[in-house]
Amino acid sequence: MDELPKLAQELREFIIDIVSTKEGHLGASLGVVELTIALHYVFDTPKDKLIWDVGHQAYGHKILTGRKEIFGTNRQLGGISGFPKRSESVYDDFGTGHSSTAISAILGMAMASRLNGDLAKQHIAVVGDASIASGMAFEGLNHLGVTDVNALIILNDNAIGIDPSVGALKKYLTNVKKGTAKDENIFECLNLNYSGPIDGHDIGALIKELEQLKQLGGPKLLHIITTKGRGLKKAEEDQVVYHAPGKFDKVTGERFKKVKGNEPPKYQDVFGHTLVELAERNDRIVGITPAMPTGSSLKFMMDKMPHRAFDVGIAEQHAVTLAAGMATQGLVPFCNIYSTFLQRAYDQVIHDVALQNIPVVFCLDRAGLVGQDGPTHHGVFDLAYLRCIPNLVVFAPMNEMELRNIMYTAQLGLSGPIAIRYPRGQGTTLDWKNDFEPIEIGTAKCLREGTKIAVLSIGHIGNEVKRAIATLDTPESVGHYDMRFAKPLDKKMLRTIFERYDHIITVEDGCKMGGFGSAVLEFANGERLSKPVTILGIPDKFVDHGTMEETHKMAGIDFDTLFSYLQSTLDQCG
Amino acid sequence: MDELPKLAQELREFIIDIVSTKEGHLGASLGVVELTIALHYVFDTPKDKLIWDVGHQAYGHKILTGRKEIFGTNRQLGGISGFPKRSESVYDDFGTGHSSTAISAILGMAMASRLNGDLAKQHIAVVGDASIASGMAFEGLNHLGVTDVNALIILNDNAIGIDPSVGALKKYLTNVKKGTAKDENIFECLNLNYSGPIDGHDIGALIKELEQLKQLGGPKLLHIITTKGRGLKKAEEDQVVYHAPGKFDKVTGERFKKVKGNEPPKYQDVFGHTLVELAERNDRIVGITPAMPTGSSLKFMMDKMPHRAFDVGIAEQHAVTLAAGMATQGLVPFCNIYSTFLQRAYDQVIHDVALQNIPVVFCLDRAGLVGQDGPTHHGVFDLAYLRCIPNLVVFAPMNEMELRNIMYTAQLGLSGPIAIRYPRGQGTTLDWKNDFEPIEIGTAKCLREGTKIAVLSIGHIGNEVKRAIATLDTPESVGHYDMRFAKPLDKKMLRTIFERYDHIITVEDGCKMGGFGSAVLEFANGERLSKPVTILGIPDKFVDHGTMEETHKMAGIDFDTLFSYLQSTLDQCG
Repeated sequence: MDELPKLAQELREFIIDIVSTKEGHLGASLGVVELTIALHYVFDTPKDKLIWDVGHQAYGHKILTGRKEIFGTNRQLGGISGFPKRSESVYDDFGTGHSSTAISAILGMAMASRLNGDLAKQHIAVVGDASIASGMAFEGLNHLGVTDVNALIILNDNAIGIDPSVGALKKYLTNVKKGTAKDENIFECLNLNYSGPIDGHDIGALIKELEQLKQLGGPKLLHIITTKGRGLKKAEEDQVVYHAPGKFDKVTGERFKKVKGNEPPKYQDVFGHTLVELAERNDRIVGITPAMPTGSSLKFMMDKMPHRAFDVGIAEQHAVTLAAGMATQGLVPFCNIYSTFLQRAYDQVIHDVALQNIPVVFCLDRAGLVGQDGPTHHGVFDLAYLRCIPNLVVFAPMNEMELRNIMYTAQLGLSGPIAIRYPRGQGTTLDWKNDFEPIEIGTAKCLREGTKIAVLSIGHIGNEVKRAIATLDTPESVGHYDMRFAKPLDKKMLRTIFERYDHIITVEDGCKMGGFGSAVLEFANGERLSKPVTILGIPDKFVDHGTMEETHKMAGIDFDTLFSYLQSTLDQCG
Repeated sequence: MDELPKLAQELREFIIDIVSTKEGHLGASLGVVELTIALHYVFDTPKDKLIWDVGHQAYGHKILTGRKEIFGTNRQLGGISGFPKRSESVYDDFGTGHSSTAISAILGMAMASRLNGDLAKQHIAVVGDASIASGMAFEGLNHLGVTDVNALIILNDNAIGIDPSVGALKKYLTNVKKGTAKDENIFECLNLNYSGPIDGHDIGALIKELEQLKQLGGPKLLHIITTKGRGLKKAEEDQVVYHAPGKFDKVTGERFKKVKGNEPPKYQDVFGHTLVELAERNDRIVGITPAMPTGSSLKFMMDKMPHRAFDVGIAEQHAVTLAAGMATQGLVPFCNIYSTFLQRAYDQVIHDVALQNIPVVFCLDRAGLVGQDGPTHHGVFDLAYLRCIPNLVVFAPMNEMELRNIMYTAQLGLSGPIAIRYPRGQGTTLDWKNDFEPIEIGTAKCLREGTKIAVLSIGHIGNEVKRAIATLDTPESVGHYDMRFAKPLDKKMLRTIFERYDHIITVEDGCKMGGFGSAVLEFANGERLSKPVTILGIPDKFVDHGTMEETHKMAGIDFDTLFSYLQSTLDQCG
């Protein structure tokens, strides 16, 4: 017990040491060093079950549970995952990544223990204040409160997710902390045994409280107050940046900024700046993000036009239907959601938007493979799950100008909804601030004509295709088409392509099953156009983490694989 | 004002009168007769915005807003919808059907009014107590509480959804009504101006309260207490049955029970009875339903084994991840969700179940077209949106025995998750309680061999195909294959089929885009098997309401259309 504060110091230093050079998520794990130690001190993991919601904060947990020596491989190809992962360790009881799942999962485990007759087993979920405000977490609490299982929810309240928390619950928790809330507690209203708030950096107090709660049966919620980035001054001061700061000086905390030459912008910034530019001209435009103002760059509009751009918290379902409500009153909502998180609002896209044919503009950030965050965060299913929805237009820009032009087109007034999906990271063009031009819905673009093979790409991956074609022995044999719309397809152009070429190859940064290539197949089959078609895309498995390049290689859609495939196909054509 | 009680009586009688002969949802609308009148008396619709969450309770609203004369066409082909629908009336501000959307939508409208400078406009959403406990509603409230928009949420608390409400919030609301809750109110915790509870059948009190709230700016919540089925004794006494009682005697309330001969069972009951049968032998089986114990027939298990079968309320997201948590501890959860509602938990299926390859058994009820409930409730996207998920097995039984056998197979212990989708309504077989036989994953079944055309069907619609083939001039020309698995496909059988036949026809009760037929195309293209394939399924549009038969006809997958298509294809084959 006496040595624990020292352990906390060492653990914190170790995390800073490694993350400062290897990169990764910093602030969240620094904030729960004491909690992590206290939990492993008081509870008997892995017999007792422990779930870290989201999982950004689980580095300390990983280091204490046998992964210290390999912690330097964090988020690297073949290395450990940046999130808890069942296949990685028996101490990772449930894989996380998306927020707000831990309460449901731990309740499932606790109910199972009860049915299995294992009444001594403890079940703990650590959930942040931003995450507990999401609908799914409420559903879990609402069920938990009418059970008598042995479960402890630890509300880790640091008033911030990736960006500062928002919403009425956050306001309420602030009142609780200030002592200005009234007597009854919102969690007690939900029939939970509430305790706290206590200082989450006081390891002695934490252990005392956890020991007490361990003796109590039934569902409990412990409210602890922590500071994100605790122990590194810079990280405490600038919590948003130090969520995942990149490389930094481990003593001063100063970030090593990459000396950037003149580089193409991130798609995120193209979205953010372009939206401001359009919103300055069109006062019907509004912006919505569920808790990703910085990541999506909607922040630019929120700073400039705070009354027209909204962070609604981790609430994708609400974000989509809120946008639908706004659009019925003549506004033009740009609802920016990461592709992987739109999975959380699939029903709302179908039932509240597409069915009523309401012109909401969805901007799906981080579509396709996302690199180090890995399989929880790859946005690879969107083309497949959106393409089957009637009324919805599905577009992917190949570059910054196409993103700008489709955003421009969307705010001119479409008759129905549109989804615009673009990847994480940089575009292709230094001089990207083109004059706006409208794009005709459902039209593709011929980038080069060829004689034997036609490559039909959709989205940014078209740039790799372009490079691969240019590197071929006989590039003139290969046509290249930037199809842009997964729906509606450019049928006229497709007919021409199927007439002209011997072999068609489709390329997408998304799952092959049901995706863009599948749409081309359906079209060709429907018109009885029988040419061999090859679909290049992500095979039917979850793609592990690695760099952007490595994840694309794993999926077989990197430059080298594309090039080899094209060259060998050409060789076979003779 | 004096005439309003009389109007209430007339409105109630009119609803009873029509619904007793035309069928439809009864109890919910009877419960809000006074509220409906009060709202239209106090507020200036359609200028003021009014949303009915779910919409089962909107019959009175429809009758009072110009649809009295056509109310008899409710839920019939070409008639008015059973739910509010924007295209039907300017008084239907937002289409509903799925629960818990109204708060988000009304907040979007209210925020738009503010941006539009229309500060006098009122915005009202009526939300039931079962619906407000769903995560999406919480997300809406959490945002609403930090705005200053002019919005009124009316919590219509009758302690029941379709089945009785569950969960901690329901318990809390009961305490509020009994006066045993403490001082602070859960909605005040969320920064809403709370008033109530008041008697929702006292029209004078309602109007007085609404007039007062109309004068107050900012977000407000009014809690009213009503009785579902109010005014028809039988409906008040048996609220579950009288949610949608079918035809009944309008005076006594007595239901006209169809005199049933010996008929095949509903798939729902096959599921319910079979689950009990299996659970009696295998004590690791548990059952989960999000608020549909009666509809899904999980009730059979809940009655027999209450500690092993759970209604978690309108909480699909929670239901799925709860199941995942249970399965990690060795239980075999049968998670029964209507196909259309699984859209609410799409991310959880991907992120919490399939990614971790956890063997949850999903039973998707009401898959395919559902008839009178119409486009909000058709479960037609599931094959497309599930097929693209790695690790997931997707199965559709053609009849009761296949449903029983796959349920039997699933609880023997699969290595990963499975989704079993079956339709609303009756199966095909009187003597359906077969002895269990395991089904090998990924195997199809040849029902009849033929010479020219092969029809590949999946699920119950195969029975229509069977009938259509038997009616042909030369049935011996047509082979019929019950493919059963949309994933994994029976590749061996498919290779044989593509070798043997000139023409392949796929038939599914789901969307053509990205569905089962699309999977067959992908397979054939991948193996360079070039035979003409025709995909019969639901075209790329939302299918309106009508009887089961009519909706199938609209979609082009009814018996007549299938028969004609087969016959004309045969004729062309010569």
